[in-house]
Amino acid sequence: MQKPSIPQGTRDFGPAQVARRQYIFNVIRRTFETFGYAPLETPTLENLSVLTGKYGDEGDQLLFKVLNSGNFLVKERRGEITPLLTPADLDAGPKVVLPKIAEKGLRYDLTVPFARYVAMNRGTLTFPFRRYQMQPVWRADRPQRGRYREFWQCDADVVGTDSLLCEAEIVLMMSRVFTDLGLHDFTIKINHRGVLRNIYQALGSEGKEADLFVAIDKLDKIGRDGVSKELLEKGFSEPTIDTLFALLGVEGDFEEKLRRLLAGFVTAGVEPDGTRPDDNEDSAEGDDELAFYRGLKELVEVHALLQASGFKQFDRLEFDPTLARGLSYYTGCIFEVKINNVQMGSVSGGGRYDNLTGSFGLPGVSGVGFSFGVDRLYDCLESLDLFTETGETPTRCLITNFDAASGRAALPLLAELRAAGIPAELYPDAGKLQKQFKYADAKGIPLVIVLGPEELAAGVAKVKIMKTGEEKVLPLGEVVTALTSA
Amino acid sequence: MQKPSIPQGTRDFGPAQVARRQYIFNVIRRTFETFGYAPLETPTLENLSVLTGKYGDEGDQLLFKVLNSGNFLVKERRGEITPLLTPADLDAGPKVVLPKIAEKGLRYDLTVPFARYVAMNRGTLTFPFRRYQMQPVWRADRPQRGRYREFWQCDADVVGTDSLLCEAEIVLMMSRVFTDLGLHDFTIKINHRGVLRNIYQALGSEGKEADLFVAIDKLDKIGRDGVSKELLEKGFSEPTIDTLFALLGVEGDFEEKLRRLLAGFVTAGVEPDGTRPDDNEDSAEGDDELAFYRGLKELVEVHALLQASGFKQFDRLEFDPTLARGLSYYTGCIFEVKINNVQMGSVSGGGRYDNLTGSFGLPGVSGVGFSFGVDRLYDCLESLDLFTETGETPTRCLITNFDAASGRAALPLLAELRAAGIPAELYPDAGKLQKQFKYADAKGIPLVIVLGPEELAAGVAKVKIMKTGEEKVLPLGEVVTALTSA
Repeated sequence: MQKPSIPQGTRDFGPAQVARRQYIFNVIRRTFETFGYAPLETPTLENLSVLTGKYGDEGDQLLFKVLNSGNFLVKERRGEITPLLTPADLDAGPKVVLPKIAEKGLRYDLTVPFARYVAMNRGTLTFPFRRYQMQPVWRADRPQRGRYREFWQCDADVVGTDSLLCEAEIVLMMSRVFTDLGLHDFTIKINHRGVLRNIYQALGSEGKEADLFVAIDKLDKIGRDGVSKELLEKGFSEPTIDTLFALLGVEGDFEEKLRRLLAGFVTAGVEPDGTRPDDNEDSAEGDDELAFYRGLKELVEVHALLQASGFKQFDRLEFDPTLARGLSYYTGCIFEVKINNVQMGSVSGGGRYDNLTGSFGLPGVSGVGFSFGVDRLYDCLESLDLFTETGETPTRCLITNFDAASGRAALPLLAELRAAGIPAELYPDAGKLQKQFKYADAKGIPLVIVLGPEELAAGVAKVKIMKTGEEKVLPLGEVVTALTSA
Repeated sequence: MQKPSIPQGTRDFGPAQVARRQYIFNVIRRTFETFGYAPLETPTLENLSVLTGKYGDEGDQLLFKVLNSGNFLVKERRGEITPLLTPADLDAGPKVVLPKIAEKGLRYDLTVPFARYVAMNRGTLTFPFRRYQMQPVWRADRPQRGRYREFWQCDADVVGTDSLLCEAEIVLMMSRVFTDLGLHDFTIKINHRGVLRNIYQALGSEGKEADLFVAIDKLDKIGRDGVSKELLEKGFSEPTIDTLFALLGVEGDFEEKLRRLLAGFVTAGVEPDGTRPDDNEDSAEGDDELAFYRGLKELVEVHALLQASGFKQFDRLEFDPTLARGLSYYTGCIFEVKINNVQMGSVSGGGRYDNLTGSFGLPGVSGVGFSFGVDRLYDCLESLDLFTETGETPTRCLITNFDAASGRAALPLLAELRAAGIPAELYPDAGKLQKQFKYADAKGIPLVIVLGPEELAAGVAKVKIMKTGEEKVLPLGEVVTALTSA
């Protein structure tokens, strides 16, 4: 006898879980659509030629690869596959052999399929193109708590415009989703790759950006001392490290931090990389030195656009010059969101990139995007007890089935309830009411309508509210009205 | 330069397609939930031990198999995989080798994962268990028009009850979905495996059911002459074939057909296999000979339950004794639906099975279920022009961006529109209005709000209805109210 199981790192979602997950998806979808983002869905299977080389060596190894159809063993025996390898090839074997036996793989993220879609449909798409995508992705990672091999991403990106309005809108969308979900204690961290670059320049450590970048990214985990130690080992001098922390450790509100960084850059003689906008001379920042540095200037602009949009949650928006984000394709603003009262990594993040579709033959497509991690949001909502009670069924109302005749006599009421849009069931088998009440209880059905021979004879139904035990006797003709107006 | 593509038989769904598909999913979901079915989602990846052997030899070959992680080539070179095969094994090779290099496969239908779920969760589920599931499945079939390698199924099943109420509800759900979709000209064909068995018995051709079954299933395609020819070749006599067509060809309405088949069975001396229900003596059929044959009796009962439920579309419900349906696990009523004014195979089908979970160690779980083919429904709605117009974006309203200052001045109105739930965009880049109107036109955005320096100075906005070209000038403060009440 086979004992069935599911693959490591995958999950079944039962009725209550699906309902809760749908609730999260709906909040996110509503926000994306209200901001004009249009849905896109791409296939689960992508050609490995599209996926490979996009996620680094580690990513390539984590791709799930799908075997070609057909009897490739015949090819193998004919000496067309592995015998072509020298023994030394064996370690690198998969790279040589895989293309011969597997041409397809499972979607690994939503960004590469989006880039592939934009490149394939360049002729028919109207830019700027705002798309959102909510689909599962697969990674052959070692499963552990909170890390799955099949998990869901919700991405929104707009490509074909450099406008910082899009960055401001990302902050508005993030804040709206978390607020709608009841996750009020969040922090949206924002930084800019240009600010990080200016910091490296202020330290005179160009060429060693990667070392700095890796070290700064660990600040959260290993603290200032850990980062200092690592940088010393990498050959950075103590004064350089002190300057770094002076710059990173700037304090104050959003604008104060920017001003202090500006002072630091000017003192260190960092070459300006910003340009004052020509068409923006009427704006308050027109004469501001901040405009000389692209990163600082764009952060100021995003802040101003948020103010003009009536954004009220500046206490939840933090300029964090230590925010680095791993993905190397970001070139402008970068974002990351933490829920503060839960032990959980970032639940959302994103940024601007200058060359999304270059590897697919369409250079110079700039855009900005961000993503919600649904599985982490689910865990946050659960640990904060923010889900409304969800039963194991959508059914609001169970009609009991006393015997064949009264079961059949209940069918018009059942039809009437359903026509009124009230999810309802008649217990399918006639029998003991106790069992039927137990069923309603186990499923979390809030109302039970008792309709036995006595009730039918009297032309009434007994409606029991399961939570309170309260019972009401209603004329049969008034049941649906009573339930719809309740 | 890489020219990107997607795998054969898979599709990207752009914004308008996703919106139309969501519309279909929503109609189906609403119906399932109104009838008390609860959502279930199972993983895309299943263990091949769960999938293999459930779909026949052909099905096993059509399973997409996913390569195990790790360097299996080292194993191969060590002589642990193919050298174990004799040359004669090569044809059967995949069956021997595959388990060593691929342990997981992609979901092939929704029934086997459902059975696996029920068997795995037997201890915690409350029966009867009504579940629906709307997810993609994958088959390595040769792609052709209307046949995809990734396609969507929408299944609803109830297990743990023999009640014929469930069969009646399937007819109600089918009829509701097609009616809600505007597909009014449909035919729900119903038959019963017991009726088919009684027909074989009436012909005295037990033991040759499979030949008869296969031939009858082709009646639609090859006609009466084709089926006769095939049966003659299989050794059936001409009188037997005549009797077969006399039984299959019964005419009249639902009940007349049943009565004529009954007469045929009695004449042919078919042994009764039905039992009169003890608890049903008060029903009209208590004394009816129909009750002696399980198939006929259950069809009568389903018909009566539909009448009691107020079902009005009996002209769209056809008892078709030639309906066979391929899947061998059906044991009771079977269903199939055709849309009549479209060239298209069946768009829905299902039936009762007595042993869903037997192969997973849980025998005797009876149930009944059915499925909608979303991709075919999509094609039907499209060819009948039944989709409402769908733009390339959810955006209802584009605000023009004349220059940086007026763009920024438009942000409060943009925020107000979105807060009111109206999907809206501000064109992200300041510039020529002509380009912005072209953008709205290409995306199918119905309203454009012109808000340039003149309008701002006058405290008004110009609202243009794109379809008619009509323009209205409204005070800025009244725009949102005008749009929400329109």
